[in-house]
Amino acid sequence: MQTVYILNGPNLNLLGKRQPEIYGKETLQDIEVACGQIAEANGLKVRFLQSNAEHQLIDWIHEAREDACGIIINPAAYTHTSVALLDALGTFERPVFEVHISNVHKRESFRHHSYVSLRADGVIAGCGAQGYELALLRLIRLLGR
Amino acid sequence: MQTVYILNGPNLNLLGKRQPEIYGKETLQDIEVACGQIAEANGLKVRFLQSNAEHQLIDWIHEAREDACGIIINPAAYTHTSVALLDALGTFERPVFEVHISNVHKRESFRHHSYVSLRADGVIAGCGAQGYELALLRLIRLLGR
Amino acid sequence: MQTVYILNGPNLNLLGKRQPEIYGKETLQDIEVACGQIAEANGLKVRFLQSNAEHQLIDWIHEAREDACGIIINPAAYTHTSVALLDALGTFERPVFEVHISNVHKRESFRHHSYVSLRADGVIAGCGAQGYELALLRLIRLLGR
Amino acid sequence: MQTVYILNGPNLNLLGKRQPEIYGKETLQDIEVACGQIAEANGLKVRFLQSNAEHQLIDWIHEAREDACGIIINPAAYTHTSVALLDALGTFERPVFEVHISNVHKRESFRHHSYVSLRADGVIAGCGAQGYELALLRLIRLLGR
Amino acid sequence: MQTVYILNGPNLNLLGKRQPEIYGKETLQDIEVACGQIAEANGLKVRFLQSNAEHQLIDWIHEAREDACGIIINPAAYTHTSVALLDALGTFERPVFEVHISNVHKRESFRHHSYVSLRADGVIAGCGAQGYELALLRLIRLLGR
Amino acid sequence: MQTVYILNGPNLNLLGKRQPEIYGKETLQDIEVACGQIAEANGLKVRFLQSNAEHQLIDWIHEAREDACGIIINPAAYTHTSVALLDALGTFERPVFEVHISNVHKRESFRHHSYVSLRADGVIAGCGAQGYELALLRLIRLLGR
Amino acid sequence: MQTVYILNGPNLNLLGKRQPEIYGKETLQDIEVACGQIAEANGLKVRFLQSNAEHQLIDWIHEAREDACGIIINPAAYTHTSVALLDALGTFERPVFEVHISNVHKRESFRHHSYVSLRADGVIAGCGAQGYELALLRLIRLLGR
Amino acid sequence: MQTVYILNGPNLNLLGKRQPEIYGKETLQDIEVACGQIAEANGLKVRFLQSNAEHQLIDWIHEAREDACGIIINPAAYTHTSVALLDALGTFERPVFEVHISNVHKRESFRHHSYVSLRADGVIAGCGAQGYELALLRLIRLLGR
Amino acid sequence: MQTVYILNGPNLNLLGKRQPEIYGKETLQDIEVACGQIAEANGLKVRFLQSNAEHQLIDWIHEAREDACGIIINPAAYTHTSVALLDALGTFERPVFEVHISNVHKRESFRHHSYVSLRADGVIAGCGAQGYELALLRLIRLLGR
Amino acid sequence: MQTVYILNGPNLNLLGKRQPEIYGKETLQDIEVACGQIAEANGLKVRFLQSNAEHQLIDWIHEAREDACGIIINPAAYTHTSVALLDALGTFERPVFEVHISNVHKRESFRHHSYVSLRADGVIAGCGAQGYELALLRLIRLLGR
Amino acid sequence: MQTVYILNGPNLNLLGKRQPEIYGKETLQDIEVACGQIAEANGLKVRFLQSNAEHQLIDWIHEAREDACGIIINPAAYTHTSVALLDALGTFERPVFEVHISNVHKRESFRHHSYVSLRADGVIAGCGAQGYELALLRLIRLLGR
Amino acid sequence: MQTVYILNGPNLNLLGKRQPEIYGKETLQDIEVACGQIAEANGLKVRFLQSNAEHQLIDWIHEAREDACGIIINPAAYTHTSVALLDALGTFERPVFEVHISNVHKRESFRHHSYVSLRADGVIAGCGAQGYELALLRLIRLLGR
Repeated sequence: MQTVYILNGPNLNLLGKRQPEIYGKETLQDIEVACGQIAEANGLKVRFLQSNAEHQLIDWIHEAREDACGIIINPAAYTHTSVALLDALGTFERPVFEVHISNVHKRESFRHHSYVSLRADGVIAGCGAQGYELALLRLIRLLGR
Repeated sequence: MQTVYILNGPNLNLLGKRQPEIYGKETLQDIEVACGQIAEANGLKVRFLQSNAEHQLIDWIHEAREDACGIIINPAAYTHTSVALLDALGTFERPVFEVHISNVHKRESFRHHSYVSLRADGVIAGCGAQGYELALLRLIRLLGR
Repeated sequence: MQTVYILNGPNLNLLGKRQPEIYGKETLQDIEVACGQIAEANGLKVRFLQSNAEHQLIDWIHEAREDACGIIINPAAYTHTSVALLDALGTFERPVFEVHISNVHKRESFRHHSYVSLRADGVIAGCGAQGYELALLRLIRLLGR
Repeated sequence: MQTVYILNGPNLNLLGKRQPEIYGKETLQDIEVACGQIAEANGLKVRFLQSNAEHQLIDWIHEAREDACGIIINPAAYTHTSVALLDALGTFERPVFEVHISNVHKRESFRHHSYVSLRADGVIAGCGAQGYELALLRLIRLLGR
Repeated sequence: MQTVYILNGPNLNLLGKRQPEIYGKETLQDIEVACGQIAEANGLKVRFLQSNAEHQLIDWIHEAREDACGIIINPAAYTHTSVALLDALGTFERPVFEVHISNVHKRESFRHHSYVSLRADGVIAGCGAQGYELALLRLIRLLGR
Repeated sequence: MQTVYILNGPNLNLLGKRQPEIYGKETLQDIEVACGQIAEANGLKVRFLQSNAEHQLIDWIHEAREDACGIIINPAAYTHTSVALLDALGTFERPVFEVHISNVHKRESFRHHSYVSLRADGVIAGCGAQGYELALLRLIRLLGR
Repeated sequence: MQTVYILNGPNLNLLGKRQPEIYGKETLQDIEVACGQIAEANGLKVRFLQSNAEHQLIDWIHEAREDACGIIINPAAYTHTSVALLDALGTFERPVFEVHISNVHKRESFRHHSYVSLRADGVIAGCGAQGYELALLRLIRLLGR
Repeated sequence: MQTVYILNGPNLNLLGKRQPEIYGKETLQDIEVACGQIAEANGLKVRFLQSNAEHQLIDWIHEAREDACGIIINPAAYTHTSVALLDALGTFERPVFEVHISNVHKRESFRHHSYVSLRADGVIAGCGAQGYELALLRLIRLLGR
Repeated sequence: MQTVYILNGPNLNLLGKRQPEIYGKETLQDIEVACGQIAEANGLKVRFLQSNAEHQLIDWIHEAREDACGIIINPAAYTHTSVALLDALGTFERPVFEVHISNVHKRESFRHHSYVSLRADGVIAGCGAQGYELALLRLIRLLGR
Repeated sequence: MQTVYILNGPNLNLLGKRQPEIYGKETLQDIEVACGQIAEANGLKVRFLQSNAEHQLIDWIHEAREDACGIIINPAAYTHTSVALLDALGTFERPVFEVHISNVHKRESFRHHSYVSLRADGVIAGCGAQGYELALLRLIRLLGR
Repeated sequence: MQTVYILNGPNLNLLGKRQPEIYGKETLQDIEVACGQIAEANGLKVRFLQSNAEHQLIDWIHEAREDACGIIINPAAYTHTSVALLDALGTFERPVFEVHISNVHKRESFRHHSYVSLRADGVIAGCGAQGYELALLRLIRLLGR
Repeated sequence: MQTVYILNGPNLNLLGKRQPEIYGKETLQDIEVACGQIAEANGLKVRFLQSNAEHQLIDWIHEAREDACGIIINPAAYTHTSVALLDALGTFERPVFEVHISNVHKRESFRHHSYVSLRADGVIAGCGAQGYELALLRLIRLLGR
């Protein structure tokens, strides 16, 4: 189990292209590269995925049950609405970290509640694209690497 | 401005001594050492402080206005009740990061709301004592160091 | 119209494999077999389906409009969040029964509300995998078989 | 312990005589007969009772502590208002099933909350008078008969 | 059907003896006499009853189904808490009037909601003991006497 | 002070002409006649008024301070929205009775709250046009006539 | 019945003169002209009115009962506070359309609720002054012209 | 950029076939034809699409970023539950209009809130299938055609 | 007036027999003995009563009006639901103390509200069976014995 | 622009005559005199007005757009209910001060919310009739006189 | 561990001097003497402390971790607002009793919630200064003295 | 008693230095001078104090009980969170005025509620630093100077 799943929810395929004043200029590809380097240096592999479909994210979490040592997930809008994602993560028994690029607590009130936080071991918000790296560092330490 | 203020709120003086199943075994001293090493390696100094008094935390934030490049704060219980802390941080114009050792979103509902998050640039919760280090890494990148 | 649709929502593909203390040890295949035998004994056929995708469940309900004498649905997490499923069921004019394996009323408060119940003729919760069989027995009596 | 208590709350003595569009045409006597036959076929006895008095229902639950293998209860209006009934059921250590003839979730909002569901193992609503039979079938399987 | 049931809920046996600043000095007996005279003058009989027991009130309402041309009820405290009373009145198909001696809307907020009002044809509050007479006058006109 | 003001709020000029299933067939003129006869028989005069304008109702209440022995008011829609009417009635020191033709408690939830009830001595709802007469009878008894 | 009433609520007399960033630069006169042309082309007349007084709007709706084939109303601030307007419209039995120049759903939360929408057949918001024209086109089609 | 995207959410494929008392008898094909004629007359093209899948709607909105001069969307049930759709529309910088065939404000309370309205320029509800045409007319004027 | 009424609500007849982890091992008889001894030592008598029936508790409170110097009441489940009990206690003019064996504030939220506390002079919760003795000591001092 | 509008809402014509324990003994005329003297001493004129009609207050605010250097308004009951007044004040671009004679925050909860405060520059409550003078002094300083 | 900490929160230094109608005439010194005598008779010592400062109370609770067999605390106003106090008490592993001199449940609603009750073993309210003695008696019995 | 206490809460030591767009450019020293002059002219002395500590403000209020003729307090953030401050002011029997520099009602919703207003005689908000002077003028008139 040397793979970290890094899952990205709806609209994140546009990261770096839309609303840079909220989400910054880095793209998902930039993040994948940065996380890949950290993982490799610690003997881990990264499976980096994005989908706009709730069910696709659920399927990937089910796959993670087989071969992942941890999940890092930015559920984007599904953070606030998807009990299905929470339940899928509930079937996964290793560490889960939730990442948000912006500080969701400063935005509209419906972004203040996260179903995913009810399952996540930790939550990192408002650290921009670097948030993924920080979550990975946390996971690596938890794994004792 | 090469100093990072790391401020700790009420009851954190007992960190590592109370309820380790929630807060882990590391003490504030352990965290101070870990952060100090990261800071030093990046040409920064750390001012590491703890108080059970709301007004003392406010006073330190006012001092930070003079000489701090950033604030990392674990407001502990004051997270949920102190508008005064929010207002004090509102007078500080450089980055602020909020750290919680446990994932507050999995605990009692009154711990789900944070006044400090309304001002913080980022929030890191549930990453244990390492959360301080992650916040410091974020601050260092923001400072361009 | 001799077919009963039995529809299963997200994460139920893992039934029997995850959290058996909540959901029991029986798998979807076990349920399909048990319901098939009851249906056959009463001159009915079962179309037994599962999907993690909300839209797939909607599509199947639309198909049921053509050839189903009733729907038994365990909407799982979509119970609590899917108005779309409610609206799809609203287009179906024959009996609908809602099944939950666990007693959702004893769990987190967000599981206490069901959009599907606003349309269902009956609701069976906390009867384990047997709940499907009970719903089928009810449907059979309603159909006068 | 071969007796199943089947308890009925206020106004159910009028079942079959009032508002048949909501509650159907079957009377309590019809239900008692149907349940008696199922019980007998499985080596169980039924104690079938109705009262408009909250305290009478509590007393019967206390008696059930002595000789019942399970309780099936249709608390009627007390479903929504009686903490005393919940507490009485909390003193009973074997299976409890809650039955409602109509689908309470489609009716006035004050009928959506059930104190009894906080204790019941399972809940069956909207299956008409047959709901009692379904609950009995569930109980029989739980008892391994 | 020439009988009007006048039902009185808990603590009303003390009417005229307790808190006269809220409830006035007239007793239930005074009210019974006044209503009896009005009824007699209009060819009606009054069945005037009081109980502290919720189930007794329910039983009387069930009896009223047999021989009453209308019900006048002062449910006292059960106004605010008894769904069972609402359901009992729901089985009665002739006019129902709800009377409160004091203006409940000027008192504690939990006295502002009435389950009984959801069924009553009319509600008279704050007209003191005379409220019963006014309700009776209304009933008499509705009956076309 | 032998005059009773009977005030009617917005849309009541259409009484008897609109939605008779809710408001009945009697017109304001019918009510004025009926109340006039009762008043005259008891040595009182009636000033019977209707306006769609909130301020006109306020002005009439101010006038009532000079010469009225009591006010009977059907505030119609202003019941639920007018603090100004409540304050106007607060300046009047003799009895005030609030009348609603329909039982407002069975209608939309925004009709369940009445600002006027916070000041009224009594409230009569759901007694149709007769409600005015009942309020007048109550006022007459209070005045000791 | 060939007249369409177009009613405008408080402060709309200033349309085009105040806060053009919210309400645009067109005046009520511009709208009257545009609607008049569309109406005339379809064999209808327009009665175009504005008032800051709630009662005046109610009076006009009462008049519309006599001679209007439909009402288009921009209730402005009374949208959110006037039950009286809702009740007045409830006495009108032909089509009613509600228009808002700005998208009220993007503004303060107290502007999200409309009493008038509970009666209106349709609602058009955020289409600027053109919203009136669109409502008129809808009305014309409904009238089969 | 001469294309208008007209997007339709879940269950709208059944338009004209289900619940005509709510949604009317016109089908999506009828609407596509009507809008196509209006567009063509104004030098625009229409891309008319329907899906039961939230992610498909999101993908189409992402495509619209490339070549659409505006979006008209009837999000159906996703109106009330999809933050993801709101966020997708947030990445689109040209006009967006939201259409509902029925007047959602007269239906169940959970249909009163729209996430999409937080982004839409305008909202048209309760104008039946014609609502799409009205939205298109608005878009055309905004585009200055 | 030398008698103290000690009243016990529903399910307390099982005290010491059910859920000892919540309610302890002492029975009502143990408590009666302990209180009797304290009372006797202070020249008082105890009338110690338990009922599962709300109306029985009300009747006893009415009796207490005649001969009791104070009431100590553990209303159990009726604490949270019985306005009738509150009103009965409202007719009693000497001291009232409310006792709960467990600390109700640490249990389910519906146990946090007490109607009885609105009338009680003092409330003692979470002091186990000893709570009755403490209430009695308080009453004795209030009585000046 | 040398005129200050001082506007007074409903029931304030009775100031000094009603409920002096809440509103004091000074009349509107007393206030007009006091304010007039302060204004004159600072080269300003006062236009001092009162109405019970919401629309009249709106009309005066519209007039103030032409010739007022500031508005002082005691909206009385309309404070809590009038969005129309808020919108009227929103069209006025110079300073607005809101005055309440009593401290509304100590009174009924519905008096705690003020629509007018959402627009007012400042709010003065509980300073009696002198509150008008204080508001005028503030306005004078703001105007730099 | 023979010391009982008795801690008193803000404004209690004025006990006996302020609002005796709420808090009685006894001073903290009177209470200290009374508790000291009871403690001494049972082989315990009392450390009796008061502070207006939240942090001072926290510090004393931390000290109690070293040498206290129990804590009796009257948190006064901090009862309702201090999560920090709750967390401090959460670090203490021996019995905690919460005392309020008045019956807080009869006062303003913001006094009905207690953070401290979430940790306290027992709560005594409305027993005046004697409440401290009662709490001490409870503690002594728990300690088996 | 010729001294007025003017108390300032947390962060006000930075007045004039932080966020001048909200709080203006005047410092506490400027305010002290202005108030001192007004006081002196009226034969009063001012004790002008600021603290970030809640307990310090409480202590000063306790001192004011001895020698103050009135208190003017800007509780800043403690306005919204401090029951302790409310209780301290409750022990003071002479006039209290609450001042806020900005109009708190236009800011975040948690700033709309004031515990201090429940005790204050009057409240002045949004009048900038001049608010202190206005409060002092009010106090002087109340004192009859």
